[in-house]
Amino acid sequence: MIVTLLTDYGTDDEFAGIVRGVIARSAPDARVIDITHGIPRHDIRRGAIVLRNAIDYVPPGIHLAVVDPTVGTPRRAVAIRCADEQLLVGPDNGLLSLAWEHCGGAVEAVDLNLSPFRLEPVSATFHGRDLFAPVAGRLAAGAGLDDAGERIDPDDLVRLEVPAPEIADGEIRAHALVVDRFGNVSLNVSHEQLAGSGLTLGRRVSIEAGGSSHRAVFATTFGDVEEGGLLVYEDAYRTLALAVNHGSAAELLRISPDDRVRLAAE
Amino acid sequence: MIVTLLTDYGTDDEFAGIVRGVIARSAPDARVIDITHGIPRHDIRRGAIVLRNAIDYVPPGIHLAVVDPTVGTPRRAVAIRCADEQLLVGPDNGLLSLAWEHCGGAVEAVDLNLSPFRLEPVSATFHGRDLFAPVAGRLAAGAGLDDAGERIDPDDLVRLEVPAPEIADGEIRAHALVVDRFGNVSLNVSHEQLAGSGLTLGRRVSIEAGGSSHRAVFATTFGDVEEGGLLVYEDAYRTLALAVNHGSAAELLRISPDDRVRLAAE
Amino acid sequence: MIVTLLTDYGTDDEFAGIVRGVIARSAPDARVIDITHGIPRHDIRRGAIVLRNAIDYVPPGIHLAVVDPTVGTPRRAVAIRCADEQLLVGPDNGLLSLAWEHCGGAVEAVDLNLSPFRLEPVSATFHGRDLFAPVAGRLAAGAGLDDAGERIDPDDLVRLEVPAPEIADGEIRAHALVVDRFGNVSLNVSHEQLAGSGLTLGRRVSIEAGGSSHRAVFATTFGDVEEGGLLVYEDAYRTLALAVNHGSAAELLRISPDDRVRLAAE
Repeated sequence: MIVTLLTDYGTDDEFAGIVRGVIARSAPDARVIDITHGIPRHDIRRGAIVLRNAIDYVPPGIHLAVVDPTVGTPRRAVAIRCADEQLLVGPDNGLLSLAWEHCGGAVEAVDLNLSPFRLEPVSATFHGRDLFAPVAGRLAAGAGLDDAGERIDPDDLVRLEVPAPEIADGEIRAHALVVDRFGNVSLNVSHEQLAGSGLTLGRRVSIEAGGSSHRAVFATTFGDVEEGGLLVYEDAYRTLALAVNHGSAAELLRISPDDRVRLAAE
Repeated sequence: MIVTLLTDYGTDDEFAGIVRGVIARSAPDARVIDITHGIPRHDIRRGAIVLRNAIDYVPPGIHLAVVDPTVGTPRRAVAIRCADEQLLVGPDNGLLSLAWEHCGGAVEAVDLNLSPFRLEPVSATFHGRDLFAPVAGRLAAGAGLDDAGERIDPDDLVRLEVPAPEIADGEIRAHALVVDRFGNVSLNVSHEQLAGSGLTLGRRVSIEAGGSSHRAVFATTFGDVEEGGLLVYEDAYRTLALAVNHGSAAELLRISPDDRVRLAAE
Repeated sequence: MIVTLLTDYGTDDEFAGIVRGVIARSAPDARVIDITHGIPRHDIRRGAIVLRNAIDYVPPGIHLAVVDPTVGTPRRAVAIRCADEQLLVGPDNGLLSLAWEHCGGAVEAVDLNLSPFRLEPVSATFHGRDLFAPVAGRLAAGAGLDDAGERIDPDDLVRLEVPAPEIADGEIRAHALVVDRFGNVSLNVSHEQLAGSGLTLGRRVSIEAGGSSHRAVFATTFGDVEEGGLLVYEDAYRTLALAVNHGSAAELLRISPDDRVRLAAE
């Protein structure tokens, strides 16, 4: 069985390593795949988007995600079965919601707070170790969802709200959602939404962000523009994005997640 | 068999990857679990504390640790069997000592400097690759401790000194030991030591550090105080620690490892 | 079967995790070893050197490398069989060339751009996921090189040019090639080239770099000089290198990759 991990623990500390260790203690034969531990601290939305984007590319199995700014408070911890049989484990704060929507919806869910699989004494601050990892490990070793906690109504799970873009002919008012290591900026505009926008491959596009205006071209890939040139493109998840060839769009446009971006076909 | 890794190699370079590779060459069926490669460079004490804190949460097996500022000098390289059968491999500079004390003491030890398992020519600067990894790999593949090197007296192993706190009724004079990625600061005060201090859950605590005074509350978890609020708490290893909810205690208090911290119940 | 990974994807984003996932989907029993994902962005030469340095220390198998500044342009994607049976997968931009030269030369090569193993639709920007990982996974699962793409002449593969040092008796004019996490600087001078230079163990060496002069000693390891002292040494790959004991040679000498360095025996 496969267990994937996605957290904001970083790799400087031992937190991710201990989660791997606890899973291996419960499920010696499970294969663990780290999606990333580099989600910015407490950035539930970034974690939710990355998990949704990654889930089709990792083997089916158990997907453990921890971005948990309210750990130790009465927020729920949950395990969820999706319509397509994927299992999700993590805090009930919206982190898992884009993944389960992508996987056909949540069809079963259990509250893990009193899970018999938890490590006692459960610490107040490291539920990744004491709650989520042992549950994921036991599920990987063959336990059923109902063994892991108390049934709850999937309709009661917390859903993440992602802002919607405003799209009119030839103009898109969007938000920056994710800035990656390369300074590429993905927006809240999907391939399907783009269809109605009038922005098409090869067109010149004016971009307003951070109080200034820039000109870009709608291109397929970085190499389609000169070095230092700004492009609008569909990224590898078919999401509208901004990039600078051999540079950083986030730096050029002084853009951070949640900032507004206006794109207009010229 | 399980081999865990803990080093200060970081993840930017190939050092940790090569250690994984060398182990896999000797022990194709061993499972390798990275605890962390993010120990600050040359920080033996941080490495020792993290290894001790992590060891109960990873599967029993062989634990390879490398924080080795005097690599290439005559410092000893060792493999150690603990009373509870855990095996430790690394430099004899105190890095392993908190772990073996935690595991019932070191009952057998061998000097690896002339180990028959070493990769020739042994480089002067990368014993992780040329000495520790091949030894860990061969132990994982079934070799005995006596095959790995020359017996030495476990009493001669280097032990790490950790400063002791001064605890009087209502007051603790402590040192900062570890600052994690989130800016949480753990002190040299264990759960057991705390019992005699007069600091108890819910009390207000004054904290002197870095030349200034702060007020905190002794709480269970971050969410027990407002955002930006300072708390004293027992961390996930039951060690006394300082944190700021949604912030960094290390930044607020301008605290680094080894700095003095005075806590007093109000 | 073993698959090793070397990329400039970093660990903050999910890119490396998705590559691991795609491989696991094609080859559930393959063992994946991350050499590093910390190659500086777009630094083909650094990637090529690290791959060449690492390849003897990881198990034989399939070595997937991605440093790919011209992804999405008509640059070729290739899989290569070396004379010693190692398989290399990556962009045909020189990244793989030092490894195949080290492994006895490239004896077979295929163009992957229309590989039947690719994930459709192939994105313009993430060939690690859509092209290289599925090819590596299928090769790991037993597919032949000819199943992966169209045969090309290995002589047409792109080779990386590494600048040669100028070596006269008692003097070396070199270039910095790699700066590691510790600030150690490796030069374009191999163990064999060093033999004719007149620089020998124990000699004092004057170093000119970054517009200033420094004195160093040719030593075996860091601990051979006082703390803060500069040394010239052969690093773990038997390459001439500069280091500061408990410090950073790159900082002291203000040196970056490609900078010129002159060493003269005193």
